[in-house]
Amino acid sequence: MLSISQKKYIHSLQLKKFRLQHGTFLVEGEKMVKELIQSDFELEFVFVTVGNKIENYNAIEISEKEMKSISALTTPSNFLAVAKQKKQVVDLTQNNLILVLDNIKDPGNLGTIIRTADWFGINTIICSNECVDVYNPKVVQATMGSLFRINVTYVDLVEFFQQNNSIPSYGALLEGKNLYQYPIKYKKAFLLMGSESFGIDNKLIPFITEKIMIPKFGQSESLNVAVATGILCSAYRQINR
Amino acid sequence: MLSISQKKYIHSLQLKKFRLQHGTFLVEGEKMVKELIQSDFELEFVFVTVGNKIENYNAIEISEKEMKSISALTTPSNFLAVAKQKKQVVDLTQNNLILVLDNIKDPGNLGTIIRTADWFGINTIICSNECVDVYNPKVVQATMGSLFRINVTYVDLVEFFQQNNSIPSYGALLEGKNLYQYPIKYKKAFLLMGSESFGIDNKLIPFITEKIMIPKFGQSESLNVAVATGILCSAYRQINR
Repeated sequence: MLSISQKKYIHSLQLKKFRLQHGTFLVEGEKMVKELIQSDFELEFVFVTVGNKIENYNAIEISEKEMKSISALTTPSNFLAVAKQKKQVVDLTQNNLILVLDNIKDPGNLGTIIRTADWFGINTIICSNECVDVYNPKVVQATMGSLFRINVTYVDLVEFFQQNNSIPSYGALLEGKNLYQYPIKYKKAFLLMGSESFGIDNKLIPFITEKIMIPKFGQSESLNVAVATGILCSAYRQINR
Repeated sequence: MLSISQKKYIHSLQLKKFRLQHGTFLVEGEKMVKELIQSDFELEFVFVTVGNKIENYNAIEISEKEMKSISALTTPSNFLAVAKQKKQVVDLTQNNLILVLDNIKDPGNLGTIIRTADWFGINTIICSNECVDVYNPKVVQATMGSLFRINVTYVDLVEFFQQNNSIPSYGALLEGKNLYQYPIKYKKAFLLMGSESFGIDNKLIPFITEKIMIPKFGQSESLNVAVATGILCSAYRQINR
């Protein structure tokens, strides 16, 4: 049985303020919770509804009604865990593309970008402080488990680029060079993506050494940022395997 | 002022049943409503909150409170329209890629796919009858206006492929050929995308003449279907301009 204070605590983790205060976050769904247990994230609680089990793990059984009272999902699953947030540090040692995200506010987009990066073997994502919290339940769910494998850190991007100006920096801009004619040739580079509403912040433009653009053939004004990131990661991998 | 029956009617359009019954759908947001007015869709009502105007169009002014009562959005905008659904017919006359979607249930994904198709100048999308309704408000919003430019029809895909078996048919499958080594070379072809949870339905596999796969370099189990569609449309345009 869940105590009232447990319920309150778990429910509070839907808000960033309380996630920061406790240094923990929610993970829901059978696949996600099982991947979490396999990962190197530290666990605080794992709950399953009556009748469900996790092999080699002693999960706490609760009723469906209790699950409903703590879940952040409209349709709760049978598995919910509370894990400790990982203190990540920026790691630029790999000879690989590094994603840099400016002001990505939509949780679904950030989650999908993390999942896409994981597909393409891109392990480092640098977020501007304005990006949505990676431990937001909607981000966590949209990563489909990739969150547990990718290094995501939050920085001031101006300072970050000032300190790391020896690495070439691609930026996706509508006025950039045609990607099909100017592919992403540097094995180690930043790829800076801006928000759909505001693009890349003006103060970051001077740090872009390679402006690129996904050619447009129709009339849509822009691409979804996760779709654009996927296209650019794929274009990178096409020549950097 | 809105009458109670108007409120009821507009509110009912959040459900497919009533959209079908009335043959109409909701469009919200300044940019979307203005694009709708420019399009060849027939209008039924256009509402703006007091103080807002649309050039050369006589919109009905309502209060913010009234807007809130009819909007499908958590944060209502100042513009809402009711338009007539367009009876689309399958049009395979263009010498171009044609998207075929099997069982895409997520409204955000379908909307993003329509927007992506529009970016790449792909004007025809064939949906299986199991796909989410294109006039679902969440689909409409996610298209960002591209809905008004793209031909989207619903069919039984087995019958469809039986009737159109002279056109080469690409299918995105995990066991397909490496996209980077086997690009999408046919200018006129189908590109069949399946749902993330279930992939392409088994009964459709025999109709695929070219199995392709986006190479994986990391550990994520799958790509989001809108991201995968974007990568494949871009790969198509890279050699078919």
